Amino acid sequence: MQDKNYVKDITNIDEDFTKWYTDIVLKAELADYADTKGCIAIKPYGYAIWENIQNYTDKLFKESGVKNVYFPILIPESLLQKEKDHVEGFAPEVAFVTEAGEEKLEERLCVRPTSETVFSTLYSKWLHSWRDLPMVYNQWCNVLRWEKETRPFLRSREFLWQEGHTIHETEEEAKNRTLQMLEIYAKVIEDLLAIPVLKGRKTKKEQFAGAEATYTVETLMHDGRVLQSGTSHYFAQNFTKPFNIKFQNREGKEEYAYQTSWGISTRLIGALIMAHGDDRGLKLPPKVAPIQAVIVPVAMHKEGVKEKAQELYEILNKKYRMEIDLREQYSPGYKYNDWEMRGVPVRIELGPRDIENNKCLIVRRDTAEKIEVTLDEINEKLEEILNDIQVNMYNMCKEIVKKRTTTALNLDEFEKNINENQGYVKTMWCEDVECENKIKELTGAHSRCMPFEQEHISDKCVCCGRKATKMVVWGRQY
Amino acid sequence: MQDKNYVKDITNIDEDFTKWYTDIVLKAELADYADTKGCIAIKPYGYAIWENIQNYTDKLFKESGVKNVYFPILIPESLLQKEKDHVEGFAPEVAFVTEAGEEKLEERLCVRPTSETVFSTLYSKWLHSWRDLPMVYNQWCNVLRWEKETRPFLRSREFLWQEGHTIHETEEEAKNRTLQMLEIYAKVIEDLLAIPVLKGRKTKKEQFAGAEATYTVETLMHDGRVLQSGTSHYFAQNFTKPFNIKFQNREGKEEYAYQTSWGISTRLIGALIMAHGDDRGLKLPPKVAPIQAVIVPVAMHKEGVKEKAQELYEILNKKYRMEIDLREQYSPGYKYNDWEMRGVPVRIELGPRDIENNKCLIVRRDTAEKIEVTLDEINEKLEEILNDIQVNMYNMCKEIVKKRTTTALNLDEFEKNINENQGYVKTMWCEDVECENKIKELTGAHSRCMPFEQEHISDKCVCCGRKATKMVVWGRQY
Repeated sequence: MQDKNYVKDITNIDEDFTKWYTDIVLKAELADYADTKGCIAIKPYGYAIWENIQNYTDKLFKESGVKNVYFPILIPESLLQKEKDHVEGFAPEVAFVTEAGEEKLEERLCVRPTSETVFSTLYSKWLHSWRDLPMVYNQWCNVLRWEKETRPFLRSREFLWQEGHTIHETEEEAKNRTLQMLEIYAKVIEDLLAIPVLKGRKTKKEQFAGAEATYTVETLMHDGRVLQSGTSHYFAQNFTKPFNIKFQNREGKEEYAYQTSWGISTRLIGALIMAHGDDRGLKLPPKVAPIQAVIVPVAMHKEGVKEKAQELYEILNKKYRMEIDLREQYSPGYKYNDWEMRGVPVRIELGPRDIENNKCLIVRRDTAEKIEVTLDEINEKLEEILNDIQVNMYNMCKEIVKKRTTTALNLDEFEKNINENQGYVKTMWCEDVECENKIKELTGAHSRCMPFEQEHISDKCVCCGRKATKMVVWGRQY
Repeated sequence: MQDKNYVKDITNIDEDFTKWYTDIVLKAELADYADTKGCIAIKPYGYAIWENIQNYTDKLFKESGVKNVYFPILIPESLLQKEKDHVEGFAPEVAFVTEAGEEKLEERLCVRPTSETVFSTLYSKWLHSWRDLPMVYNQWCNVLRWEKETRPFLRSREFLWQEGHTIHETEEEAKNRTLQMLEIYAKVIEDLLAIPVLKGRKTKKEQFAGAEATYTVETLMHDGRVLQSGTSHYFAQNFTKPFNIKFQNREGKEEYAYQTSWGISTRLIGALIMAHGDDRGLKLPPKVAPIQAVIVPVAMHKEGVKEKAQELYEILNKKYRMEIDLREQYSPGYKYNDWEMRGVPVRIELGPRDIENNKCLIVRRDTAEKIEVTLDEINEKLEEILNDIQVNMYNMCKEIVKKRTTTALNLDEFEKNINENQGYVKTMWCEDVECENKIKELTGAHSRCMPFEQEHISDKCVCCGRKATKMVVWGRQY
């Protein structure tokens, strides 16, 4: 009975996905609204997820030669204006510091929406010879973008991210770095977050302000909408020329460096919620879950139950991220629902009869399966089960991607598919932006990317019927 | 010869300590000036030190029950004004966002100089019952304080820090948390940074804006000046009342919670430089050094040298943070100076004759001592030597503290001591702020703290001669 009462608090996922999402963010205590409009306060449980993403990613970064730095959050307005496309792309979203230390500033200072201009200015100061290259720097920091409509984690005026900015001796090296970082993002999202990605190149219309090429990893959410989850940009010399980032090359000649940038953000927490969640709440993959298993003692008042549960906790906590729920004011039933709602992958129930029989009951969050395990085996068995949950959650998402991916040969098919099915729509395309705009207008779908794995669906553009040169995947986006 | 040429680049430490400091910051590539006035760009080597401080500290935090969060950087001005002393203390240093998204904002938004007001607002929303307590939250983040005079790491308009904010059921618990965090700071600074601390309570004049009591860890720099290196504040109910942070206590009555906050910052990098550095440059304790040992091959062109050096690097790098210097364009002599200047604790020289004899030469940065070690032993021997360096560096600082600590019974002695010796001056005090002000005016020294370890020096206040109630340590500050 408590079961139903509890779940009632959360909106039905298929009834109102947006409301469901907000319910989860607040009730699972991932974040809360703050007094500053459009900004959120990330609470311990949400931040612990971010820390796990950071640790996993940062390790891959460092193995690939990335060095962390920290550069100023405030950018003189004149700097932002040095690259034309870039300033046009970001100007509408910038917040400005205009007063400080009880005085009006002479020049407005932008609060960074991204730091291409800051890194470029410093690189131009530091770069002299080809021997100084590459510079492969990254910062984990906050950024501000004054969005009109905001949603926790997905689109917040302030958010946390990492932004890598690199300069290289050759075009080839820079291009390789762009793709290398995209592969790291794919690994973070697939291996850690258990969400399958679609990898490819953005169309010109969708690429980053100032970039020569933007590569992306896209993910599919429960409602069939698509989330841009990480991007990596190749800039060629688009910034190194206006910012005068040049070096003496091996032949003793002056040359402009080749540049990249790449980033992922706390938006990935939104992806986690929306890709895996269900009617019972959040569902976290074990590798990224702040709590991998929770012990809920049953009939806590009975002699020895609390002690045995505590003992089990101490043993398992050496190897796993554990929690034990000893709250007196709640029933076991309430606790079961509470931890399910918070997405903890495994619940371990332990009552007097279990203790008598030297066993406990494991309940999986992903399948609701109940598994009896002896207390002697549990330390090894738990690892197996967590691994299996991780794989199963990835496969469940993969299955949804499969179901939600359709092919369209003409606009009628496109409209029908996306209205019935949302998801990814694969089509051929002539690479004309006119067709891209028309599709957007008609279907509400943006081009997600031109996948690396190109398929030949037909010879003709889905929109204009002229000769097609690329296979594109489309979808309605967050 | 190269030796001297190289060191010439750095100002003599006893000639102009300020200039020496700036030289080290720039030449060791810890940081550089940025285009934003009063802000610095922390470079990879400097940031790696900060990461080591963070990792060490965060582990101690988590063991003590601290949970990390992230709250907004922008604070509506009205919030900052809720606690009178607090706003008076910070108002002159605040930077304001007044325009965003191409519009003028209705209310100015402060860029956080510290987040008591943000945490307090959220705590008042989240706190209901004594069961919700304590809340022991911390964030690692950037803050802005619009300082008039800035110096890299020591006083920068933007800096990185952690700020912990906690609320508790009882006064006792809150006070204990305040002191517990001070002990953690003492451990970070003494054990990791190898700098002895002076622990105590700040006088009323020197305490944090809005605090009931401020506790501090102070450290002594090479030039005899004192650096406030970490503070922990007990607020009693000074914020919980205006911010309405109350809860139903165990007796069912409404009560205001008891609050603390505490922080350390990138200022500690300044402490590292100034406490340990010498005429040859930076000197880093092994526990916090981004590079613990560097291998410099000698006569690299000779057959097998590079390969053997590389082989040694691979072995040692599994256990230590290693670097190998294979730069072709520099001589070994240049490299020796370069790595000494960067403060690497140990240099390993390896030449053809060493290889023949199955040995290498270890050179200590702290003592310049040269130690011949066989290649079979080096993996264990290096650990011993690094440990010894860590201890020795702490002891060297301790020795300086001893030399630079004096006692004064009257103002004449006080003046003489501080002018001759800088450092810590110990005196008795009547606890009257008039005397504190007079001492400041006369000697340029601020009260550092009333040490936990009180001594009875005399019965009379060093300034007015009336009955003394406290022993105070004074010093000229950064």
